[in-house]
Amino acid sequence: MTLVNLVLMLALVEFVFILMAVGRARETYKVPAPATTGNEVFERYCRVQNNTLEQLIIFVPAIVTFAYYTHQPLIAAGLGLLFVIGRWVYFVGYVKDPKQRSMGFLLSFAPNMILLLGGLIACIVALVRFGLA
Amino acid sequence: MTLVNLVLMLALVEFVFILMAVGRARETYKVPAPATTGNEVFERYCRVQNNTLEQLIIFVPAIVTFAYYTHQPLIAAGLGLLFVIGRWVYFVGYVKDPKQRSMGFLLSFAPNMILLLGGLIACIVALVRFGLA
Amino acid sequence: MTLVNLVLMLALVEFVFILMAVGRARETYKVPAPATTGNEVFERYCRVQNNTLEQLIIFVPAIVTFAYYTHQPLIAAGLGLLFVIGRWVYFVGYVKDPKQRSMGFLLSFAPNMILLLGGLIACIVALVRFGLA
Repeated sequence: MTLVNLVLMLALVEFVFILMAVGRARETYKVPAPATTGNEVFERYCRVQNNTLEQLIIFVPAIVTFAYYTHQPLIAAGLGLLFVIGRWVYFVGYVKDPKQRSMGFLLSFAPNMILLLGGLIACIVALVRFGLA
Repeated sequence: MTLVNLVLMLALVEFVFILMAVGRARETYKVPAPATTGNEVFERYCRVQNNTLEQLIIFVPAIVTFAYYTHQPLIAAGLGLLFVIGRWVYFVGYVKDPKQRSMGFLLSFAPNMILLLGGLIACIVALVRFGLA
Repeated sequence: MTLVNLVLMLALVEFVFILMAVGRARETYKVPAPATTGNEVFERYCRVQNNTLEQLIIFVPAIVTFAYYTHQPLIAAGLGLLFVIGRWVYFVGYVKDPKQRSMGFLLSFAPNMILLLGGLIACIVALVRFGLA
């Protein structure tokens, strides 16, 4: 499980980098706080940040549940690493051009969904096999 | 605890459905990314998504802490299921009419607060009884 | 670990207070749902809420990983308490004047980064010492 926790921490470090990039974009495109609109490129940074937050709230419990209930921490860590890479592709692509956001989105959404649905199925299997213990 | 994890995964699957509904609403009401404003109905979808995210950041640690420290995983899972149902009522109600959002909100907020405050109290009781062990 | 869980619950209770303050500000400054813009002071409340959500998605897994892998739950709980206090300073400062947000932000961001990077390093050390066990 240590490797799963390491990938989890990496995903959060990546998120901190995205948060800092949004902060810098706020200065570059001169959007004074608390505004979040007014410059289209700055809004792209905001969307990457919000979308990553939405995916992380799924990712964090899903990777732990998947690893624990499938007894496959290495597969969980591998899917988690794919998620981290996909998020970076999404970030770079979206900021360059909103139309280029699909590839990176799918690259991180797919492993996240495998973790979530795999975790869900593994919980059901454990309930069927071992009951409410 | 398996049942608690299952309910957790269900709440996240529900969130994925809400995310996909926002994506579809973006197309239906023609709000091109990265904009999040410009159409009032689309803004309702966005608010449901953001509000659910805010509740989930509480829900995920609260249900686990409640289940672990009260030794009542079945009650935790039941409250969690109520939360999932309440969120759906909130989603359907808000999108139809923002004035109808109160009932679903309370239906999911109440179990979430019981999990949070119950978890808090159970931690304090455990500290008083067993110290910092 | 009980103390770590207690601090976690406290951070979430604080977030509930911030959510309620945003709800009251919506009434005070007459910004009907689903709008989030239109009044500059209300937008400050929204920014505090969103920023706290962004920090919490890091804080929750980071404090648990730090406490578990460094075997220092008391230090984790202390850093977590600093985070909670710093968030309150940030909230009060930002709402009064966006230019006053830096101090509270740093006061909560610094312990959060120590938890995250400390957790990351502790995972790497554990992997080097004990392998993939």
